[in-house]
Amino acid sequence: MLGLMQEWPLLCHKLIDNAERQHGAREIVSRSIEGPIVRTTYADLHRRSLKVAQRLERDGFALGDRIATLAWNTARHIEAWYGIMGIGAIYHTLNPRLFPEQIVWIMNHAEDKAVFVDLTFIPLLEKIAGAVKSLKKVIVLTDKAHMPQTTLPNAVAYEEWLGEVDGDFAWRSFDEGTAAGMCYTSGTTGDPKGVVYSHRSNVLHAMIAAMPDAMGLSSRDTILPVVPMFHANAWGLGQSGPMIGAKLVMPGCKMDGASIYELLDQEKVTFSAAVPTVWMMLLQYLEETGKTLPHLGKVVIGGSSCPRAIMTKFQDDYGVQVIHAWGMTEMSPLGTLCTLKPDYAGLEGEARLDVQSKQGYPPFGVEMKVTDDENNPQPWDGKTFGRLKVRGPAVARAYYGGAGAEQFDVDGWFDTGDVAHIDAGGYMQITDRAKDVIKSGGEWISTIDLENLAVGHPDVAEAAAIGVKHSKWGERPLLVVVAKPGKEPTKAGILDFMDGKVAKWWMPDDVAFVGEIPHTATGKIQKITLRQQFRDYRLPTD
Amino acid sequence: MLGLMQEWPLLCHKLIDNAERQHGAREIVSRSIEGPIVRTTYADLHRRSLKVAQRLERDGFALGDRIATLAWNTARHIEAWYGIMGIGAIYHTLNPRLFPEQIVWIMNHAEDKAVFVDLTFIPLLEKIAGAVKSLKKVIVLTDKAHMPQTTLPNAVAYEEWLGEVDGDFAWRSFDEGTAAGMCYTSGTTGDPKGVVYSHRSNVLHAMIAAMPDAMGLSSRDTILPVVPMFHANAWGLGQSGPMIGAKLVMPGCKMDGASIYELLDQEKVTFSAAVPTVWMMLLQYLEETGKTLPHLGKVVIGGSSCPRAIMTKFQDDYGVQVIHAWGMTEMSPLGTLCTLKPDYAGLEGEARLDVQSKQGYPPFGVEMKVTDDENNPQPWDGKTFGRLKVRGPAVARAYYGGAGAEQFDVDGWFDTGDVAHIDAGGYMQITDRAKDVIKSGGEWISTIDLENLAVGHPDVAEAAAIGVKHSKWGERPLLVVVAKPGKEPTKAGILDFMDGKVAKWWMPDDVAFVGEIPHTATGKIQKITLRQQFRDYRLPTD
Ligand SMILES: Nc1ncnc2c1ncn2[C@@H]1O[C@H](COP(=O)(O)O)[C@@H](O)[C@H]1O
Repeated sequence: MLGLMQEWPLLCHKLIDNAERQHGAREIVSRSIEGPIVRTTYADLHRRSLKVAQRLERDGFALGDRIATLAWNTARHIEAWYGIMGIGAIYHTLNPRLFPEQIVWIMNHAEDKAVFVDLTFIPLLEKIAGAVKSLKKVIVLTDKAHMPQTTLPNAVAYEEWLGEVDGDFAWRSFDEGTAAGMCYTSGTTGDPKGVVYSHRSNVLHAMIAAMPDAMGLSSRDTILPVVPMFHANAWGLGQSGPMIGAKLVMPGCKMDGASIYELLDQEKVTFSAAVPTVWMMLLQYLEETGKTLPHLGKVVIGGSSCPRAIMTKFQDDYGVQVIHAWGMTEMSPLGTLCTLKPDYAGLEGEARLDVQSKQGYPPFGVEMKVTDDENNPQPWDGKTFGRLKVRGPAVARAYYGGAGAEQFDVDGWFDTGDVAHIDAGGYMQITDRAKDVIKSGGEWISTIDLENLAVGHPDVAEAAAIGVKHSKWGERPLLVVVAKPGKEPTKAGILDFMDGKVAKWWMPDDVAFVGEIPHTATGKIQKITLRQQFRDYRLPTD
Repeated sequence: MLGLMQEWPLLCHKLIDNAERQHGAREIVSRSIEGPIVRTTYADLHRRSLKVAQRLERDGFALGDRIATLAWNTARHIEAWYGIMGIGAIYHTLNPRLFPEQIVWIMNHAEDKAVFVDLTFIPLLEKIAGAVKSLKKVIVLTDKAHMPQTTLPNAVAYEEWLGEVDGDFAWRSFDEGTAAGMCYTSGTTGDPKGVVYSHRSNVLHAMIAAMPDAMGLSSRDTILPVVPMFHANAWGLGQSGPMIGAKLVMPGCKMDGASIYELLDQEKVTFSAAVPTVWMMLLQYLEETGKTLPHLGKVVIGGSSCPRAIMTKFQDDYGVQVIHAWGMTEMSPLGTLCTLKPDYAGLEGEARLDVQSKQGYPPFGVEMKVTDDENNPQPWDGKTFGRLKVRGPAVARAYYGGAGAEQFDVDGWFDTGDVAHIDAGGYMQITDRAKDVIKSGGEWISTIDLENLAVGHPDVAEAAAIGVKHSKWGERPLLVVVAKPGKEPTKAGILDFMDGKVAKWWMPDDVAFVGEIPHTATGKIQKITLRQQFRDYRLPTD
């Protein structure tokens, strides 16, 4: 027997329908690519998104078409998203930080038919557009006055293009399982893999993200999504924000400390989200200038593990609550958030930081488990680590075109490629990437633990632990160290320092000193290059 | 093109799976029907609900069977709900306050096959069970020691019955559109009508209810659902509470001021929800005893319009935030909540109360409009009232068996039968029930406005406005008044008092004094009886 409740498909345009109806006058403030700070409202967003949808249809685009965006966080980018989704086409956010060849590969794989592009990225697009066979149209996110000379074929200025329709349009209707958005994730090996979000997953994710124990978003918040829309949907803020009618502040292309501070201060931002490096820049700016954060209530920090120093500064020096979070492009992206359960709510000082250093627990709508290589669930004891697997309505069940099938098991669990443990309180902590973990005699050693420990040594600037071939154990840990300027730590000194703080068999078999450790574009240690570098390294224990 | 996100149907048992996994040790405290206060946990709830499911299957119950509950709010009632839903059967909450013949009618209409019943209601059930042909099994929510002698056929004590299985069971799987629950709404006219909730609607409603701008529920809350589970799902708290892992406090059968206070105080309740009459009793108890509410943070008040005096006392005297809310059985039940948008957040005193007296605005997931009789949308000006219509994933699209089809239109809007206006800020205010509104020369007059105004007169205890036949205008308002003890207000005095405070043509044509005004079981004025009483009344203006 079926329930007798209404068919009310979870479609993304309903998010902005609600924003327009209930929060029409609320502002969206953007630092425009042209320079000035520009103010629109949810009523504008709704009206203009409808025009984008109508105009796209007039250009012949339709249900299922992939339409790329190569753009910063601005109101125009959000309008483009909702306009694209409103006809059942699929927004495809391109990460401009990738190599041009990767972008070409991705656009060809997705068969993007059009692209909305910011002025910043025209030179990049001019270089690659010719190689994207499917591309028919380029919409430059600016007005006529700012439209540059360009060799791009079929390029139009957004405002002019939009001006050609009247907005008398109704959203197209389709099933809630229809694809809404797309984002490629580029691992360190292999080709990028495409994640395809549905309308349903986007709407459910928006609801999950806004919950009190997740981000806790209200219409009384002013939200600054620093994390780019091309970085896993700006962690859902482009959906959650309109859903609850919060004022949005969009940072455009300026993410330096002074620019972010200017927006936080002038727009009285109460909530923001970004990766640790952005916050590092802001905190440095605050220290240099002596400025404070009287309006900011909380920040979500994720994308990579949040250093304790950032938490301490935000919380103790500026009175801003930190929510450490973990997620992935494949998860829309929220996986866990480190808000405090009642048992922890009273903790202070180091004890509180110990909890907050973990990546947190999943909200309703995300299930997680940690297994060994044979898919046996591991105990929730805060030490036994294994492969972190997740399940939920906003988690991918496949990649576009079927790549990476080995990451999805029959019961629908997605293997995140992260290695983690979960404690008795349900809090998860990432200890490694699966491909970085060191397997010694079949047992796993967490490289992140070794690195965190090693950087506690006063003379160590940076450390990376990698597995090196060993005839008896298969692999044993080598610690690669960059010394602080003017310091000369020794192998014995570092090992002495670490001794007793990790299991004996975890202790590195050797320490190698280098001038520099290679990093990825987003600041993560490039373990793959490092392992390459030390491929023929002979451990003294072998 | 479809999205590539996981199939993760919105099934109710996932709410308690999550509670068990992430909040297993959190308590559910019940005032038991046997007397003592009993403590269980979400881990217990999960384990015992699985046993209910397993035991029901062993008794031969299965997908689609209707299984009634005639019970107060306790942990056992919640276990029964999840156990029933876990095999795809349908919990059917019966309102014990209805007349026995109505309960019989409802049980026969739903064809209930079993009933979970509290000790309190055994005498009632004994009287009616024989008339319910479909009934096969009676499970008395108690243990062997407390099991009474009963004439009920196939009656077993819950704990004994549950003890016969081991809980080694897996939830059954089915589509998220599957019926999960059922509740009949008894209008003042006609037969009761059955609303059938689905798993999807229950889960979405739980998410909608917990949002920061709705009830704003967190794992750090301790929730006391005073509103009965048989009154529109305890406003969703039996689903939202487990979903977010809040401690639950279940009041059993005692709703008087002292009993509610005892739980609020001893269990440090932070959040509660009930109809105005319950709060009136609590506030009176507090005044008599001089007690305070140091833990309680906010209360949701709905079911009927919340008097200003209740809001003032809670907010000014006890520091408890009031959220006025409106809903219906047909809406799962949340429709609107009066939380404050940023423009209103700073209001104080009377200005704040003016907003809070409205029923509020709908969260994402509920759409509303106000139309005239020809279905034309009315302006959002805070004065033009009309029929209130709603739409959403947790709103009924039909009644069980097809009754009341005229309330559902082709576009899926449900006519609530309430009359309301919406202001420019999006806040809705109920002005009447559609069947109570007075139609004078084709224009509508709000009886609630007239009544609220009249009771402001110092000598008036209660007032009801009804339409009385008028040869020229069709209908004109008659004000029926109960004087305060020892007072003798006059017609002229009352009309003078009202004059200038409503439109001239709204002014009652006459005032009739009575000793008593008839009320329904839930304390609402029984307008239908009153109209009957004054059917042949001749207005002096006619
Ligand atoms: N806050 C409120 N103010 C006025 N009437 C209300 C309110 N909440 C509920 N109601 C009335 O109660 C009806 C629903 O009754 P029920 O289905 O029994 O919950 C609504 O249609 C309204 O007429």
